[in-house]
Amino acid sequence: MGKNRLEAFSDGVLAIIITIMVLELKVPHGETLDVLLPLVPTFLSYVLSFVYLGIYWNNHHHMLHVATRVTGPMLWANLHLLFWLSLFPFATGWMGENHFAPMPSALYGLVLLMAAIAYWLLEQAIIASEGAASLLRRAVGRDWKGKLSPLLYGVAIVTTFLAPWIAQAIYVFVAILWLVPDPCIERALHRGEPWP
Amino acid sequence: MGKNRLEAFSDGVLAIIITIMVLELKVPHGETLDVLLPLVPTFLSYVLSFVYLGIYWNNHHHMLHVATRVTGPMLWANLHLLFWLSLFPFATGWMGENHFAPMPSALYGLVLLMAAIAYWLLEQAIIASEGAASLLRRAVGRDWKGKLSPLLYGVAIVTTFLAPWIAQAIYVFVAILWLVPDPCIERALHRGEPWP
Amino acid sequence: MGKNRLEAFSDGVLAIIITIMVLELKVPHGETLDVLLPLVPTFLSYVLSFVYLGIYWNNHHHMLHVATRVTGPMLWANLHLLFWLSLFPFATGWMGENHFAPMPSALYGLVLLMAAIAYWLLEQAIIASEGAASLLRRAVGRDWKGKLSPLLYGVAIVTTFLAPWIAQAIYVFVAILWLVPDPCIERALHRGEPWP
Amino acid sequence: MGKNRLEAFSDGVLAIIITIMVLELKVPHGETLDVLLPLVPTFLSYVLSFVYLGIYWNNHHHMLHVATRVTGPMLWANLHLLFWLSLFPFATGWMGENHFAPMPSALYGLVLLMAAIAYWLLEQAIIASEGAASLLRRAVGRDWKGKLSPLLYGVAIVTTFLAPWIAQAIYVFVAILWLVPDPCIERALHRGEPWP
Repeated sequence: MGKNRLEAFSDGVLAIIITIMVLELKVPHGETLDVLLPLVPTFLSYVLSFVYLGIYWNNHHHMLHVATRVTGPMLWANLHLLFWLSLFPFATGWMGENHFAPMPSALYGLVLLMAAIAYWLLEQAIIASEGAASLLRRAVGRDWKGKLSPLLYGVAIVTTFLAPWIAQAIYVFVAILWLVPDPCIERALHRGEPWP
Repeated sequence: MGKNRLEAFSDGVLAIIITIMVLELKVPHGETLDVLLPLVPTFLSYVLSFVYLGIYWNNHHHMLHVATRVTGPMLWANLHLLFWLSLFPFATGWMGENHFAPMPSALYGLVLLMAAIAYWLLEQAIIASEGAASLLRRAVGRDWKGKLSPLLYGVAIVTTFLAPWIAQAIYVFVAILWLVPDPCIERALHRGEPWP
Repeated sequence: MGKNRLEAFSDGVLAIIITIMVLELKVPHGETLDVLLPLVPTFLSYVLSFVYLGIYWNNHHHMLHVATRVTGPMLWANLHLLFWLSLFPFATGWMGENHFAPMPSALYGLVLLMAAIAYWLLEQAIIASEGAASLLRRAVGRDWKGKLSPLLYGVAIVTTFLAPWIAQAIYVFVAILWLVPDPCIERALHRGEPWP
Repeated sequence: MGKNRLEAFSDGVLAIIITIMVLELKVPHGETLDVLLPLVPTFLSYVLSFVYLGIYWNNHHHMLHVATRVTGPMLWANLHLLFWLSLFPFATGWMGENHFAPMPSALYGLVLLMAAIAYWLLEQAIIASEGAASLLRRAVGRDWKGKLSPLLYGVAIVTTFLAPWIAQAIYVFVAILWLVPDPCIERALHRGEPWP
């Protein structure tokens, strides 16, 4: 029951973040196609962030599905994750408006990195609550994606000052990596069973 | 249980999109009736989009009611649908502010078209998960509305450059077409039974 | 089950409307107390609308509690009600920014009137679905508030052009009238029982 | 069941308030790091308010967990609390944009104070409904945090005109005080049991 309210609140915040982001796509003045052109980078960064938030919602769902109870640390680790995710609209808007310039792209990478760390902390809080023998712990043991992503974000933050488009390529690559639902957790948990 | 969270998240996003749209109706300066006049097209486009999002919410509810489980593809097809619906406030605002000019009307039609395709993809994902003998598949087989709508959106996108008001008439016509709850699904499923 | 999703969606939309309204209270430039003064009318109109939306949420909850099933007409009557409620932020902002001038006050009254009519239509849709012997019908039969309110809104719309403050007094009076939970429905339904 | 909808509505409003606050962090023009510098105070005030709203959400959850039924006064006490919380984005934005100047800091303290009083009123409404022997009453009897906080907010409001940073230190101190989950309620209720 406590878990339900935690999920509902997280879903609410995620749903609002994902939708508020589109407000950065400001309605332009003028009725011709060329007034839309300056919005293309903002639109592309919106697509990227939409996919990332979709991934977080999906993974968050999988992870909480495994949790059998909610503890104080889990609650605050979850709010901490939501905090970094709430900065997506700002980072997305700044990167889009400046056409993927180095500094905004680095900040975007930083928000991605902090969200990944926050996600990892939430994972640890759940494992601490569930015990060392928990399903999540065994599933996460081989979680190479969760280990590779922060590393790649770090690389992207550095390389954006050399060549901004490498950073973008990395962000897209990591998103694609995650788009495939995590077979580790799924296999360990739901053999033959559909999505949680 | 997984279905509940999918529905709750979709409801949240739809509720926010529908409400955020009204923010395009910016409070005018001045206290006389004539400052409201330039807002009339924005208001009318808001009404149209409100009805469309209501239809999507209603149909989404009917369709998910039939699903007995949630799979990965369904999840992403659902997010894909929400993505196109999230562009409604932008497309609505641009069309309203430019008094139904050709290009904004065409973009509005494009967003309607993409949402219709995304809805169809979600339908296919559910049918793939439920199997060929599923109730949904049988109901959808005669789903002439789902086939006619994208066609009409396509016609509207083209004709808006010849006569913008034809496109608007088509958008209104398709909305009216859908306002009547789909008797196909309803008849096949809930003979005599009230709304799911 | 269908009722749950209808309630959840309505709650979502109401929660967003109530919160989005506060965005009309724009953060002023300057750090002294006097920059807040021009915001006082906007703040007061926000308080009034917050109370009205709270009343609608409360009554909506009571009314749907009585419904045993959800029909197509109920669904659309509900969306119709949400449509008029979604115009609260606009009407509130325009009235507040213009310091309760006649025309914005009249529009505010019109939105209140349309919402009251939409609420009545939803009530009729539920009664039609539940049958003539339903609890709601008996409770509503003596619903003098529901009949008096639209009348008073109409009076307010007309008198605002003579003396704007009479309209405001009427809006406040009707809100106070409703703040007391409806004893008709409550008495008929939950004798001795707490809030649904 | 009535409690569920009250929780869901409160969660919705809190989720939106927490997310709308980030809109005060406006995307700056320019792509260099120095355009972010003027946003640092706004960001810090956002962090503070995010933590406060997280605390309210957490405590609200604990408190409602104890309630066995929902009464009319509880409902309105809850809406009253949500009203003051809905002013967080405004107070946070004004304080952040003016770099913690005395008057905006005092208003922020006033909103914190009113929210604390509203929370206390909701607590009293629940105790009145649950009876003198209720678990909540016993737990709250030793609730020194709930008594100390309004006092400290009052001190902060006064001292901000002497030295604004003292007020900020008090706001941060009270937040830290609350970050530790309330052991009073928890101990009285869930001996050995995890978070509600």
